[in-house]
Amino acid sequence: MSEISPIRWKATHLELLDQRLLPGEVVWLKLDDVTTVAKAITDMVVRGAPAIGVTAAYGVVLAARYHRQSSAQHWRRGFDQDMQLLAAARPTAINLKWAIDRMLQRVEQNVSDAELEAEAIAIHQEDVAACKAMGDYGAALIEGDASIITHCNAGALATAGYGTALGVIRSVFHQGNLVMAYADETRPWLQGARLTAWELAQDGIPVTLIADSAASHLMSTKHIDWVVVGSDRIAANGDVANKIGTYQLAICARHHGVKFMVAAPTSTIDLDVASGADIPIEERAAEEVLGVFGTRIAADVPAWNPAFDVTPASLVDFIVTEKGVIESPDKQKIAAHMRQGE
Amino acid sequence: MSEISPIRWKATHLELLDQRLLPGEVVWLKLDDVTTVAKAITDMVVRGAPAIGVTAAYGVVLAARYHRQSSAQHWRRGFDQDMQLLAAARPTAINLKWAIDRMLQRVEQNVSDAELEAEAIAIHQEDVAACKAMGDYGAALIEGDASIITHCNAGALATAGYGTALGVIRSVFHQGNLVMAYADETRPWLQGARLTAWELAQDGIPVTLIADSAASHLMSTKHIDWVVVGSDRIAANGDVANKIGTYQLAICARHHGVKFMVAAPTSTIDLDVASGADIPIEERAAEEVLGVFGTRIAADVPAWNPAFDVTPASLVDFIVTEKGVIESPDKQKIAAHMRQGE
Repeated sequence: MSEISPIRWKATHLELLDQRLLPGEVVWLKLDDVTTVAKAITDMVVRGAPAIGVTAAYGVVLAARYHRQSSAQHWRRGFDQDMQLLAAARPTAINLKWAIDRMLQRVEQNVSDAELEAEAIAIHQEDVAACKAMGDYGAALIEGDASIITHCNAGALATAGYGTALGVIRSVFHQGNLVMAYADETRPWLQGARLTAWELAQDGIPVTLIADSAASHLMSTKHIDWVVVGSDRIAANGDVANKIGTYQLAICARHHGVKFMVAAPTSTIDLDVASGADIPIEERAAEEVLGVFGTRIAADVPAWNPAFDVTPASLVDFIVTEKGVIESPDKQKIAAHMRQGE
Repeated sequence: MSEISPIRWKATHLELLDQRLLPGEVVWLKLDDVTTVAKAITDMVVRGAPAIGVTAAYGVVLAARYHRQSSAQHWRRGFDQDMQLLAAARPTAINLKWAIDRMLQRVEQNVSDAELEAEAIAIHQEDVAACKAMGDYGAALIEGDASIITHCNAGALATAGYGTALGVIRSVFHQGNLVMAYADETRPWLQGARLTAWELAQDGIPVTLIADSAASHLMSTKHIDWVVVGSDRIAANGDVANKIGTYQLAICARHHGVKFMVAAPTSTIDLDVASGADIPIEERAAEEVLGVFGTRIAADVPAWNPAFDVTPASLVDFIVTEKGVIESPDKQKIAAHMRQGE
């Protein structure tokens, strides 16, 4: 089991592994106020929908402590403003809102700082447990030896640990069934090249890096069994928002008869959005496409840089959550899955 | 009309625009022997199937001159060795072999150095003329205003001038019908970001750069009419080898009902290979994927770096050559097209 986790709660402050510097440097940033936490989410110090959720929960703890200390009576005004700032740090991943909402329910119950901290720690621990459950559910679907393509980083680094899509790959590896994990490099931010390759290599899991453009050629010339990815938001009808390029990969998987699995906790499912068309898609700065981490590579032209895309439910064979498996997802199955165990 | 051309013949030597340094630096390299010419092709100083063909033709001129001067009697031994070296400089683009074969026919006729030089110049000039013909045939297919996605650089820089796919885009622009050209950045070598964006911007043609992974999201969220690409080799049955990622783009174009056009001179059509399965696909160094022009970006893992892929004829709506248009290409249509005008 991987011990990699990008988030450390230190009682007085939060520590985040700066994912902008991986794999070259392993640097932990110390964050002791919610404004810094929100900026770290926007700037992608921490990324990945579940990890953003856990980080935001600790941000709520820091904000509540600060404002309660500042003014026992009027603390909610500044706190509520901070919550708006935090919720707006990135638009696509719903886990951010989910975690803030869960923390705010406790705030409304007038719990103590210690109880609020305990709630954030619970969210943190539940995320690791959810990843392991997803890993096992996902791995159980994959029969026999398998080569798997994944996109972006839906790994330990995108969660509190173990990972969603990479949790499935870890579990397949532990079963002894993983032939090869192929990591799309995932331009422009190179989460695949920098993060997925790094964390799988750290755990001794066989991984081969490919350019995003090589996935279909890989499917047509080598034996690929599955595509497994994470998600930033799943609509009520099963449409899946995830890192730009996921949709393309899903189209190509279907074209080649390769199965397509999405691994994401139920906190990623947003019953308030009917379909993928209603999911806000973040557009990031053109500079991310025009360069590679500060080094200019492109000619002086405009660039379009959507950070996510939407894969329609019709192209998704399985959604795996901590509650189990949804095959060929649709509105009814998603609703039933969310009610399960309630 | 664009005056951009990456190849200058200077009577005593050849000059090549070093495409590894664009768009940052415009540097011309002087080459006066065939070994250097072959290395320039291997190292991608010059790239693009038609440009490789023209370059090789001048390489034959330089080799013949050198060996004839060295030994009027025994010159063919060294010359033939050089021809093997030159032909092996890159494996996928058939235009390399086509140009060498055409030059060797003249050599077999015992023509003078001056006549051999004239043949290379003819190949050079015919390539520009072929590109303009293709541009017009391709543009005639595109009715009304159009937004077009292109991949890699099938432009003036990939030919003797004007370009194949970018020749079509140039002609659509000159007709006043181009809404936007979207350039895939084309990892790992970034021909789209560095070369296509640069040469279209030089000519004032509207261009927007996207990550390769964003093409499908672009097709599903904005109005895209066509994908237009070049080719490195077209098999007798119409299967198209082109830059890695072309196949993926063709699958996604078909999925969205976007038309897919391949613009390539008949010198790219290889009747000796029955289908795409018989086209050798060059695999280049892992370092190209693990880094960006010498800057390491990825974790320390293996990478798979096929430089080309094969798009089956069934996904190709049109092949456009200097002779005209082949709709829904197959073996019979390709054969008839090649006989045309003979």
